[in-house]
Amino acid sequence: MEKRFEAYGWHTITVEDGNDCTWIDCALQDAKAETSRPSIIFIRTTIGCGAPHKEGTFEAHGSPLGAEEVLAAKKFLGWPAEPAFFIPDDALAFFRSAVDRGREWEEQWEKDFTQYRNEFPELAAEFTRVMEGRLPDGWESRPPSYPDGTKDTATRKASESAMQTLASSLPELMGGSADLNPSTFTWLKGLGDFQKPGMPQENTQGAVGGAWGYDGRNIHFGVREHAMGAIAVGMALHGGIIPYTATFLTFSDYMRPPIRLAALMGLRILFVFTHDTIGLGEDGPTHQPIEHIMNLRAVPNLTVIRPADANEAVESWKAALLNQAGPTALIFTRQNLPVLSRSELSPASGLQRGGYTLWDSSPAKPDIILLGTGSEVLIALEAGRNLASEGRRVRVISLPSWDIFDRQPAEYRDQVLPPDVRIRIAVEAGIKLGWEHYVGLDGAVVGMDGFGASAPAKVLYEKFGITAEHMVKAAKELAR
Amino acid sequence: MEKRFEAYGWHTITVEDGNDCTWIDCALQDAKAETSRPSIIFIRTTIGCGAPHKEGTFEAHGSPLGAEEVLAAKKFLGWPAEPAFFIPDDALAFFRSAVDRGREWEEQWEKDFTQYRNEFPELAAEFTRVMEGRLPDGWESRPPSYPDGTKDTATRKASESAMQTLASSLPELMGGSADLNPSTFTWLKGLGDFQKPGMPQENTQGAVGGAWGYDGRNIHFGVREHAMGAIAVGMALHGGIIPYTATFLTFSDYMRPPIRLAALMGLRILFVFTHDTIGLGEDGPTHQPIEHIMNLRAVPNLTVIRPADANEAVESWKAALLNQAGPTALIFTRQNLPVLSRSELSPASGLQRGGYTLWDSSPAKPDIILLGTGSEVLIALEAGRNLASEGRRVRVISLPSWDIFDRQPAEYRDQVLPPDVRIRIAVEAGIKLGWEHYVGLDGAVVGMDGFGASAPAKVLYEKFGITAEHMVKAAKELAR
Repeated sequence: MEKRFEAYGWHTITVEDGNDCTWIDCALQDAKAETSRPSIIFIRTTIGCGAPHKEGTFEAHGSPLGAEEVLAAKKFLGWPAEPAFFIPDDALAFFRSAVDRGREWEEQWEKDFTQYRNEFPELAAEFTRVMEGRLPDGWESRPPSYPDGTKDTATRKASESAMQTLASSLPELMGGSADLNPSTFTWLKGLGDFQKPGMPQENTQGAVGGAWGYDGRNIHFGVREHAMGAIAVGMALHGGIIPYTATFLTFSDYMRPPIRLAALMGLRILFVFTHDTIGLGEDGPTHQPIEHIMNLRAVPNLTVIRPADANEAVESWKAALLNQAGPTALIFTRQNLPVLSRSELSPASGLQRGGYTLWDSSPAKPDIILLGTGSEVLIALEAGRNLASEGRRVRVISLPSWDIFDRQPAEYRDQVLPPDVRIRIAVEAGIKLGWEHYVGLDGAVVGMDGFGASAPAKVLYEKFGITAEHMVKAAKELAR
Repeated sequence: MEKRFEAYGWHTITVEDGNDCTWIDCALQDAKAETSRPSIIFIRTTIGCGAPHKEGTFEAHGSPLGAEEVLAAKKFLGWPAEPAFFIPDDALAFFRSAVDRGREWEEQWEKDFTQYRNEFPELAAEFTRVMEGRLPDGWESRPPSYPDGTKDTATRKASESAMQTLASSLPELMGGSADLNPSTFTWLKGLGDFQKPGMPQENTQGAVGGAWGYDGRNIHFGVREHAMGAIAVGMALHGGIIPYTATFLTFSDYMRPPIRLAALMGLRILFVFTHDTIGLGEDGPTHQPIEHIMNLRAVPNLTVIRPADANEAVESWKAALLNQAGPTALIFTRQNLPVLSRSELSPASGLQRGGYTLWDSSPAKPDIILLGTGSEVLIALEAGRNLASEGRRVRVISLPSWDIFDRQPAEYRDQVLPPDVRIRIAVEAGIKLGWEHYVGLDGAVVGMDGFGASAPAKVLYEKFGITAEHMVKAAKELAR
């Protein structure tokens, strides 16, 4: 292990006898003195030290020692048998001294900060704001918008634009990708590279531009999704930062443990995932997410948002920043998508409620409801128009976030999805499992049953039947 | 990187100029000559070598070179501009020579094997059998069985018993756990430790007993779930082996990429997961799976089985071995469970159809259907009996494998789950999402909405409302 961390360029320190606190103290001093690289301290101890029969065996790890062995250990240590939970006086006194020490430090800090606030009221207010996780006034002003007639835009590109304007009003927004910036478009342009100061910066491949040092806001995580997620967790726990990460959606599999911990700890982290379906094309089935969108939806307290077009993509960034209760997964396309004509359809701000009626073929109550997310909303819309042209009353719902939608009052949900309209067809280029949550046993799902394939997006959507034609057919069968 | 693999004890070789095949040849010879430890060869090359404008930049990795740059590269290499896909004659001749060489080798192998078959017909037949992945006659004879009145048994313990008898008739069954044998109970006792021969074997901690060497059938993977899954994939691809792995269910998150690849490649691998719900108790929310069962169900071509008691656990091992089309995830409890009384209930062999009617309160068609998996089937049964005692006609379904059940003919599925009986209540100590697949919009799910907590299993089931009482209440509300 020491050699491995040496190979990484770390400062390694080994304490041969971890039962001697003096040596641990020395190691800590040594580590603090090394400021040019990270330190790791290896402390050798014996597992279950002092338990005469279990010392040095795995039994001391996997299960409690048991009453008998605890007694024997106490005897070995020269402790009294009673009370069962015994704390030696000197240990108690040592730990209790931390209370006074901590109080002193806190009082000193409060005094210092009061003085700082008096001298620099604006900076102090800004510090307090970011540490409390509050967004500043006007943080969402001047977002990019995509009027009717804008050329086709991938949601990853709209995300890039949204990030640039949001970053200018939110200095606490900071992050990067797992060596995929040219594909995820998750750089904060000109806002600096978070790198060791003094390293080369001019013309460095991958550099985002701006400051080069610890004030850079672009983190180059490297090809290591798990560590990227874990680092973001640490940044969020520190406070004062809204961290984001980015990679391809299929690689979310590498970072499930830190995503889960972020959800468990209720941390505001933005996990960006691009290349979200078979629509990524020729990279083929290893790179094409199938089960991933649903699997992220299944994580408690993780909000998943998959916008349908450029305007919803901008809204999704806002929704993610507004979600202080836990992490958000933002899911974007690689491929270009038409910008939905908002003069004919409901505004994209409907995303803030998770799902919304995008289009009704008539003011009357619909007979048929079509639901979709992301790039497939367009397919639902085409199917809806086809069905309407044959005289059916159709509603098309854009459902970018199940989590947010399910948190809305029942009144709103029932308004969007009238409980008695049961001809419901959902479309998503992902696993079908889970969609019965909205379409029930009487509806249908147009989705994937197996893995993808390598071909251009258009060919794959045809091959796997993720088409308006297929939706229309399913609707007609159910409406018979 | 070299230092890192040196630290692991590997033999490292570096080729400084990867464009010179002679050196690569030398490195391969060198690696073959080293038989006492694994070798890794580092070959330094320039990305996009020969492409004059993109050589050495990331542009040569992430996207095609483009027609212009391809032409420039051809010019640099002294190749003709046409045809677009040009193969130099000497390269063609060299690759084609592999055909003759391969044919010769194959003919020689066939000759040798025919001779071997003549001399050792039984061994040759056995070799052919395991390489073809066929199970031998009588492979499932003498499985453990748990008659009425057997004391409470954790499904991980029943799995342990099933493994011992199956391993005796299946020499190709081989695997281990991520340093968790004393918890997953997935050792093959007395069948040897797969370890470097000559290392200490007497009284070695964790040793399973039997031969110590490369004929041992117990693999000690270490605490590395991702690598464990990847190793199992390699073993299955080699053929002649049915590999299994084991860890806690929550740690399935660490091995999603190899599980997915096993499913994509259709490999028979048995992924065993124990400690499957909040029922694991005090280890708390980090260790308590919530979304994991559903997340595994969402992987295409992965068969998930979660048996309800000891007898179903034995059946689940059989079902997994019979599944040659892809991997199977076997999900077991840590906690003891009553052995269901099969004299009063349907036989556990119903598991082979994925789901089956465990109990009907009357011969008439039911009004209420209760569904459950694993440890929660007992809860469904208790709820069913309570409802029946109040005069309701109730059916209780054990649904250990959605995948197998959904592959049954519609006739069988409709018989178990009559389409017009819509008062359906499912119970599972996992995320609710997904269960609407069976209960639809008119049913109810008794399950988890968030993360677990640290307490004894019984306390947690009460706290989170995973109880018969809760099921009865839901049924009565729906039946109103």
